[in-house]
Amino acid sequence: MANIKQIEGGVTAAKGFQAAGVEAAIKYQNRKDMALVYSTVPCKVAGTFTTNVVKAAPVLWDKKVVEESAFAQAVVVNSGVANACTGKQGLDTCKAEAECAGKLLGIPADSVLVASTGVIGMQLPEDRICAGIEKLVAAKADTLEAGLDAAKAIMTTDTVHKQIALEVEIGGKTVTMGGMCKGSGMIHPNMCTMLGFVTTDANISKELLQKAVSADVVDSFNMISVDGDTSTNDTLLVMANGLAENAEITTEGEDYEIFCAALHEITSYLAKKMAGDGEGATALFETKVVGADTKENARVLAKSVICSSLTKAAIFGHDANWGRILCALGYSGVQFDPENVDLYFQSASGKMQIFGNGVACDYSEEEATKIISDPEVTALVDMHMGDAEATAWGCDLSYDYVKINADYRS
Amino acid sequence: MANIKQIEGGVTAAKGFQAAGVEAAIKYQNRKDMALVYSTVPCKVAGTFTTNVVKAAPVLWDKKVVEESAFAQAVVVNSGVANACTGKQGLDTCKAEAECAGKLLGIPADSVLVASTGVIGMQLPEDRICAGIEKLVAAKADTLEAGLDAAKAIMTTDTVHKQIALEVEIGGKTVTMGGMCKGSGMIHPNMCTMLGFVTTDANISKELLQKAVSADVVDSFNMISVDGDTSTNDTLLVMANGLAENAEITTEGEDYEIFCAALHEITSYLAKKMAGDGEGATALFETKVVGADTKENARVLAKSVICSSLTKAAIFGHDANWGRILCALGYSGVQFDPENVDLYFQSASGKMQIFGNGVACDYSEEEATKIISDPEVTALVDMHMGDAEATAWGCDLSYDYVKINADYRS
Repeated sequence: MANIKQIEGGVTAAKGFQAAGVEAAIKYQNRKDMALVYSTVPCKVAGTFTTNVVKAAPVLWDKKVVEESAFAQAVVVNSGVANACTGKQGLDTCKAEAECAGKLLGIPADSVLVASTGVIGMQLPEDRICAGIEKLVAAKADTLEAGLDAAKAIMTTDTVHKQIALEVEIGGKTVTMGGMCKGSGMIHPNMCTMLGFVTTDANISKELLQKAVSADVVDSFNMISVDGDTSTNDTLLVMANGLAENAEITTEGEDYEIFCAALHEITSYLAKKMAGDGEGATALFETKVVGADTKENARVLAKSVICSSLTKAAIFGHDANWGRILCALGYSGVQFDPENVDLYFQSASGKMQIFGNGVACDYSEEEATKIISDPEVTALVDMHMGDAEATAWGCDLSYDYVKINADYRS
Repeated sequence: MANIKQIEGGVTAAKGFQAAGVEAAIKYQNRKDMALVYSTVPCKVAGTFTTNVVKAAPVLWDKKVVEESAFAQAVVVNSGVANACTGKQGLDTCKAEAECAGKLLGIPADSVLVASTGVIGMQLPEDRICAGIEKLVAAKADTLEAGLDAAKAIMTTDTVHKQIALEVEIGGKTVTMGGMCKGSGMIHPNMCTMLGFVTTDANISKELLQKAVSADVVDSFNMISVDGDTSTNDTLLVMANGLAENAEITTEGEDYEIFCAALHEITSYLAKKMAGDGEGATALFETKVVGADTKENARVLAKSVICSSLTKAAIFGHDANWGRILCALGYSGVQFDPENVDLYFQSASGKMQIFGNGVACDYSEEEATKIISDPEVTALVDMHMGDAEATAWGCDLSYDYVKINADYRS
């Protein structure tokens, strides 16, 4: 329906958005570790946040801004230190951070969002944060390069930066949308993992923006997992500044549908990028469940497979150990008859049925190994119970996941 | 209350029980891979089985025997092939196996239990199974050695065999109870992981035996996890032949309480042994939650911590990365105020508070590293919400877990 065209760039692609990424030595040395996203005009903002009971201080701050502030206009992000489990001092730091940015940008402190990612338990160094904000404000620009700097500055154990931008026509106007995210470990969104930031010049009411975002994450960020650990800092923020000048989207008609389709293009791209860049990952492992009785059951089944440590290790070993997939479907909590399940492996190298009628198919082990040795592997599961579908994305489990996490703090 | 005395041995410790372990070349070569447990007289039998929707053929067979047969008298076990996802042929093999053992032992086929563990999806070689049963029946004996042979034959990726026996007085008679189990990967009991077999000469009604077993696993086998994968084959069988000649336990009085205490001694010992021998594990990682508002919440919290891949990797790296424990408590689904949680690390090397009042305590990192470098490490969590407690057992996540599971089938 929506005629979506991918373009270059990320959070600075849409009209009126500027960004920056600078070195602030918060914890990392000699690399960019603070980012700014700024809109020249006030934005509607929507967000979804971790469901973890232990919420990082920036999450508490941002929830308040999203729910109570009339508008938002800037996001300040740091990597290296998560500002989680930091008590009252951690909250005070968020406030100081927003006040500092607000003063330098000439906007109210309660229109400044903050986000942090990194080690849990350490306090943020307030002086270095404020010095970083000064550099960010001086460096901010609406260029592709500035957007890229920001996407790089928010990385922790990520091996690649993650950004995307697109154009779509809404109500006769060209609307642009861009996003970036980070996330590699402690990734099991609910909602959502990681830090994600989407900017758009679309004109949409705050109510519908939040509705679109909340509905979207269920099938994008909430369908990925790297390690089953739902972070304390998970945050997705979407800012819409209206500069595309389309008639404001205030009802759930065609314009809203197109907006949602464009948003999903951004979020599912970023979600897959995160899964494929899971800590230590050598492959993106996708599980697509079709023929389920309900959408929710399809989601649960798909997610159970990509979360299975044994399946993930088998993918790493290029071993078509399909029994582990059946096992993971079986303990998902969804009721089904194993006799009716068809299982296929699929990748750029081909597609092959592995299991059907309750037993293994007569397949070539060599051919199966070839299929699952590709950098993007799909397990396709047909439940034959209905027509609901869902897709989940994860990665393999490698030695490097253990290496990275046995000694992350040092 | 119960005066429980640990003694040497395993499944042959109790009166009237014989066992054997032999080489049958089911899949492994040059090692024992079939076991028999046999009672000279008929037994009451109780069992708990995997909750996985995909149930292995032996699980289906045993459920029927436990629920419908008047008594049971023998268990035949093989390692190497799980007989799961094997359709009708797999079920036929179970029947043939029970008929073969029944004929050779002179007992009804429906009093023979069967169990399998190993690779999912392969059919069992019926001829070699039957040849193995002949050897088992010829070799069966009531010696400690025969019990040990059986405990060794059921191992797959286990690095040590697991058995225990004890004596306790019930109604003026000495009752003996012994058990063995296997389990190292695909361990996330619900109920229960692994294969476990407990034999006793206690005299107890079938109804109370099942009640005791079902209640027990909630705090023993169901409180351990190696990798979050609930197997297709999980089976715990408890056989009671009454030869201790205590007055039959038919009500929930003192004798029943003593029986349950003895059973828990056996099952919690075996459960901890399995967790500590998790695939690739270098340490047993225990999480004890105290001060929870309900018993069920205590269980959920404790299990969430021992299941966290990030926490497990930190234990492997001897890194006191307590933020991951707070994070795992936070996403468990239990509601609580992080400000009220106290966290301690504890081992043979000492005990130290790490977190309290919502922030890190002022502890020595060096001392903490020392404590969590022991082969048995406990995270003690005080929720300060009530007086419910629970303990869960897991292990660290090491390179060897990945190695073992990236290439298990070959």
